[in-house]
Amino acid sequence: MILTIMKNASREDLERLLEKLQWMGFEARLSGEVGSYTIALIKGVDELTDIQQFKRLPLIEEVSEFKHPFKLAAKEFQPKKTVIKVKDITIGGDTLAVMAGPCSIESKEQIMESARIVAKEGCKILRGGAFKPRTSPYSFQGLEEKGLQYMKEAADKYGLVTITEVMDGDQIDLVAEYVDILQIGARNMQNFTLLKKLGTCNRAIFLKRGLSATYKDLLMSAEYILDKGNPNVMLCERGIRTFETYSRNTLDLAAVPILQDLTHLPIIVDPAHGVGIRKMVPPMARAGVAAGADGIMVEMHPEPEKALSDKQQTISPEEFHLMMEDLRKMAPILNLKI
Amino acid sequence: MILTIMKNASREDLERLLEKLQWMGFEARLSGEVGSYTIALIKGVDELTDIQQFKRLPLIEEVSEFKHPFKLAAKEFQPKKTVIKVKDITIGGDTLAVMAGPCSIESKEQIMESARIVAKEGCKILRGGAFKPRTSPYSFQGLEEKGLQYMKEAADKYGLVTITEVMDGDQIDLVAEYVDILQIGARNMQNFTLLKKLGTCNRAIFLKRGLSATYKDLLMSAEYILDKGNPNVMLCERGIRTFETYSRNTLDLAAVPILQDLTHLPIIVDPAHGVGIRKMVPPMARAGVAAGADGIMVEMHPEPEKALSDKQQTISPEEFHLMMEDLRKMAPILNLKI
Amino acid sequence: MILTIMKNASREDLERLLEKLQWMGFEARLSGEVGSYTIALIKGVDELTDIQQFKRLPLIEEVSEFKHPFKLAAKEFQPKKTVIKVKDITIGGDTLAVMAGPCSIESKEQIMESARIVAKEGCKILRGGAFKPRTSPYSFQGLEEKGLQYMKEAADKYGLVTITEVMDGDQIDLVAEYVDILQIGARNMQNFTLLKKLGTCNRAIFLKRGLSATYKDLLMSAEYILDKGNPNVMLCERGIRTFETYSRNTLDLAAVPILQDLTHLPIIVDPAHGVGIRKMVPPMARAGVAAGADGIMVEMHPEPEKALSDKQQTISPEEFHLMMEDLRKMAPILNLKI
Amino acid sequence: MILTIMKNASREDLERLLEKLQWMGFEARLSGEVGSYTIALIKGVDELTDIQQFKRLPLIEEVSEFKHPFKLAAKEFQPKKTVIKVKDITIGGDTLAVMAGPCSIESKEQIMESARIVAKEGCKILRGGAFKPRTSPYSFQGLEEKGLQYMKEAADKYGLVTITEVMDGDQIDLVAEYVDILQIGARNMQNFTLLKKLGTCNRAIFLKRGLSATYKDLLMSAEYILDKGNPNVMLCERGIRTFETYSRNTLDLAAVPILQDLTHLPIIVDPAHGVGIRKMVPPMARAGVAAGADGIMVEMHPEPEKALSDKQQTISPEEFHLMMEDLRKMAPILNLKI
Repeated sequence: MILTIMKNASREDLERLLEKLQWMGFEARLSGEVGSYTIALIKGVDELTDIQQFKRLPLIEEVSEFKHPFKLAAKEFQPKKTVIKVKDITIGGDTLAVMAGPCSIESKEQIMESARIVAKEGCKILRGGAFKPRTSPYSFQGLEEKGLQYMKEAADKYGLVTITEVMDGDQIDLVAEYVDILQIGARNMQNFTLLKKLGTCNRAIFLKRGLSATYKDLLMSAEYILDKGNPNVMLCERGIRTFETYSRNTLDLAAVPILQDLTHLPIIVDPAHGVGIRKMVPPMARAGVAAGADGIMVEMHPEPEKALSDKQQTISPEEFHLMMEDLRKMAPILNLKI
Repeated sequence: MILTIMKNASREDLERLLEKLQWMGFEARLSGEVGSYTIALIKGVDELTDIQQFKRLPLIEEVSEFKHPFKLAAKEFQPKKTVIKVKDITIGGDTLAVMAGPCSIESKEQIMESARIVAKEGCKILRGGAFKPRTSPYSFQGLEEKGLQYMKEAADKYGLVTITEVMDGDQIDLVAEYVDILQIGARNMQNFTLLKKLGTCNRAIFLKRGLSATYKDLLMSAEYILDKGNPNVMLCERGIRTFETYSRNTLDLAAVPILQDLTHLPIIVDPAHGVGIRKMVPPMARAGVAAGADGIMVEMHPEPEKALSDKQQTISPEEFHLMMEDLRKMAPILNLKI
Repeated sequence: MILTIMKNASREDLERLLEKLQWMGFEARLSGEVGSYTIALIKGVDELTDIQQFKRLPLIEEVSEFKHPFKLAAKEFQPKKTVIKVKDITIGGDTLAVMAGPCSIESKEQIMESARIVAKEGCKILRGGAFKPRTSPYSFQGLEEKGLQYMKEAADKYGLVTITEVMDGDQIDLVAEYVDILQIGARNMQNFTLLKKLGTCNRAIFLKRGLSATYKDLLMSAEYILDKGNPNVMLCERGIRTFETYSRNTLDLAAVPILQDLTHLPIIVDPAHGVGIRKMVPPMARAGVAAGADGIMVEMHPEPEKALSDKQQTISPEEFHLMMEDLRKMAPILNLKI
Repeated sequence: MILTIMKNASREDLERLLEKLQWMGFEARLSGEVGSYTIALIKGVDELTDIQQFKRLPLIEEVSEFKHPFKLAAKEFQPKKTVIKVKDITIGGDTLAVMAGPCSIESKEQIMESARIVAKEGCKILRGGAFKPRTSPYSFQGLEEKGLQYMKEAADKYGLVTITEVMDGDQIDLVAEYVDILQIGARNMQNFTLLKKLGTCNRAIFLKRGLSATYKDLLMSAEYILDKGNPNVMLCERGIRTFETYSRNTLDLAAVPILQDLTHLPIIVDPAHGVGIRKMVPPMARAGVAAGADGIMVEMHPEPEKALSDKQQTISPEEFHLMMEDLRKMAPILNLKI
């Protein structure tokens, strides 16, 4: 149930209304600002709930039902787009976010050089994996804490914000010590225990769509995080698994405008995992921006052919430079700075 | 087998070489122009064929094997992009092709008004269905020949080129009488009897990717047409069937750069069928162009809410106008005129 | 709309009712037998149709709406299972139909020997391809009419019924001259022009599910045939295209009980195309019968390793014998003869 | 690398060989019994490894390479089927394992009555969820530890073995205290942190195939558990996500014979999640057994219409009884006891 609040409601009125709703047995969440508040009843409503009782409450302008099972993530609850602030940058606002860096952090030199290139191209977010989810237990599993240290050092030197993957709830505290944005991989998108823990941490969350997750599944997973109190969630389209095997996955760019129609959360496109072919990363990054994405994540390595993981989809500094030139031309058409 | 011909080979030399190859039992096809000829051996080669025999022939610079099962469609055989000429326009060259018009031709007035709008926006290709493949035998099946007449009249008045779907080999002659480009629908992409017949007609062919066709399947279907002698084939990405059902299909835009890497044939994107949601057509048209498409096909109806078919994915004249404004900004970034 | 007719209605009453309905503008179809007739209104009903008018007509016990878009194929219209008679055998009745033979008819000897083996194992239906839909235009395309002649000769000698694929409407007459059951391949499942023509021919139709066809799509394609007047349609589950590529397709055996819940048409399982791995054909044939299939189709060749097509999924006479032994044990559990 | 050991090798010889291999830098694992040992080198082998060095070692009969990326799970390493012993029962041996019980443990009475029915039908394994992974954070999440207590009590009373889902590494110890077999859900199939922890616990593991996991993905996940030292892993086919949405998932029964061809681990079929339609559970359980499954898992509830979760796919005690009657007829055909 969504309660639209009258324009003239004061903050104190609202507090009293929220208390009343809680006393009535509902879990209520507030969204908006003076003049345009809405309240979502996220628990306690069922088929027996009498809608009329809400209409009789003071301050309530309109009562409507959620169209979808996600609530806090829904645009109906929060029409205004979420802008996530991380240090001195924003994601979801008027600037295209570009996140770049190697698949795995392999050495101090490698991540340092990566950071230098990222900064040189005017990008603000450095990516790099320290804990790597690998299909095989016998593949390189990442440098772990040492990798985090290297990345922090590199980011500090070049004034960048960082993002890395967290694979388990027990890693959150350690990773949050070094890194600004916590990435949840496609394989963990429905690891509900992990999602609940992310809901109580004070870091922005980058949630990747699962290989066979529908738009609604993805939004329900975001809901788990929002429900626990962390509003800083961005979603990432990174390709779904289909019958086409020439590409690693099928990048579903329609997810961008569709998700933006359903939710207020920022949407990032990852063309590297989405297609899995190095040459296709720049055109698909362009296409992602043209579809309306709030940001792009790519794998870039100082020497892609020497990368320890994902080498077939990692672009070189030169390719990255050309891609950024293209994006700089595209962004203004979409009213974005870069 | 691909035979690269020496630069100094004359046309007469080549004729003699082709005769010789035929005499040796191979079916050979020539591509290129003076100074850069290649010959494809499309039949007669098997695992017992001795490669050395080709190296001993005169004029042959290099002998290589096809990387894929398609041959005439392969870029290795014809590195230069195919530019299809239809009346006074070209598809696959330096101009973005925009094809627009109603799903079904419903009346003379409707197609006339559609043509007027298409022309007004500076587009050159009018689409409209006269024979409609419908999932249900009880749905509207199209105006058939009368529809074709209406469309020809409208196109002639506004100086447009036309495209419509052909569902069966027996319809080719009738449709070719009225229409410039013959469209093969996704459901008929592997109707091999039909493909063979299209190979001998003198119209350009617009071949849509099947709902579960891989890139290679699509190229093999094009190969059926090319093999029979019709070189004017363009391919259309129009969405594949996946587990995601919020959208009608999943528009696979990576198909654009990947197909362009594999083939010399022009690639068109159909965002209407690809997503099936009216609001998503303009952003996905933009994304298609950004991915590098040679053209865009959309369903546009003077009054979309009254359309007899595909109404949920048909854009209005206003939406079409805004979309064209966007595409006009995007095209130059991709070095395309519009 | 489905009209359930009173038990005491005579045949003449019914004729008059049907005429009346036609006069009212509806296309009506009768199903059932004395004491349990139903009438389907397949055309003429829309959202404006007044249901009450049917209740006021004589003889009508109940008026209900179709739950699905298919009508003549629906169990609600014809609760009694369709039993297809072909010469002296039946499909869909109390006997498990086993159809076996080579993918392609390759020579008179090959099909003769195949027929001998099929008959020896107590099976009644010989399969073999004469017109082959091949992904590549350069692959073996079948012996065409000569193949049909060979198969007819073999079938006549061993007292078998025959089935072969028809790829185009223009082939129907030729094929029907030699063969008892016309098979429509997965790629042609939505070749609506072909389906309409099959609706007016006097042969039983074996309709394969398309690679990405839903249950409803398949039933709508059957509806095209039924609507044109041919009631002898059986459906075939032969695997759908999914992300799993270890097997050729994913055999969807739940299609068997689900389709039997939705339609009165017989359901056949093709484990060879469904999995595409020779070794897996016998266990999946067993599973198909256990799921409740009315029949099984397999590719069997006197010498599988020499087969010109589909060799990787073709079983040998010995494997066929062992499979039949298993099926003979399974059939009685499902109350089937064999 | 797989090293086949000479028949006459003694246990002491082997120990020395294993030490030697370790000293050479390889991680080696032993499989088999006196007279038929094999050793797998699971780490340390790369493209530079000299195969000849192994041939020069004593006791080694043959050196071969792994065909697939999974090693300990591969049949080539352990040709003999794994038989998992849990208390007085075995899974993977000559007895069909039937696991039944409610989706969620809802109350002591409910699980007690479920256990009574399971035991009455001669089954030995009680299932029931205490920690429930739900798409929505607002759905019932399970009774947690209290549920485990109830289930243990019920199982003890009726002499049953138990299975329940574990969602996170932190839950393993708690769940293992009460329950015999730990189930890993489809959504956690690639939660590698969890898999590693399961590899060191002393409970049998029931690993469900992910919604878009290939056979190889599933086997690689099993490999994570095996690699850490827990050999008691069974795999479960529970449906994959495809374009067909009439059923909840597409039950891929070919997975049964294919996995049995690739691995020595037991394979269980879950027709309830696989199809998601109550009526289809019994035929698909039959089909699963016919395909060769080592066991069947079903959701059964004393009063399915009152179930708090998965009610649409939960069978009643009567349906369960009829299903068991069918399975009792089928099992002997597959040489299984029940």
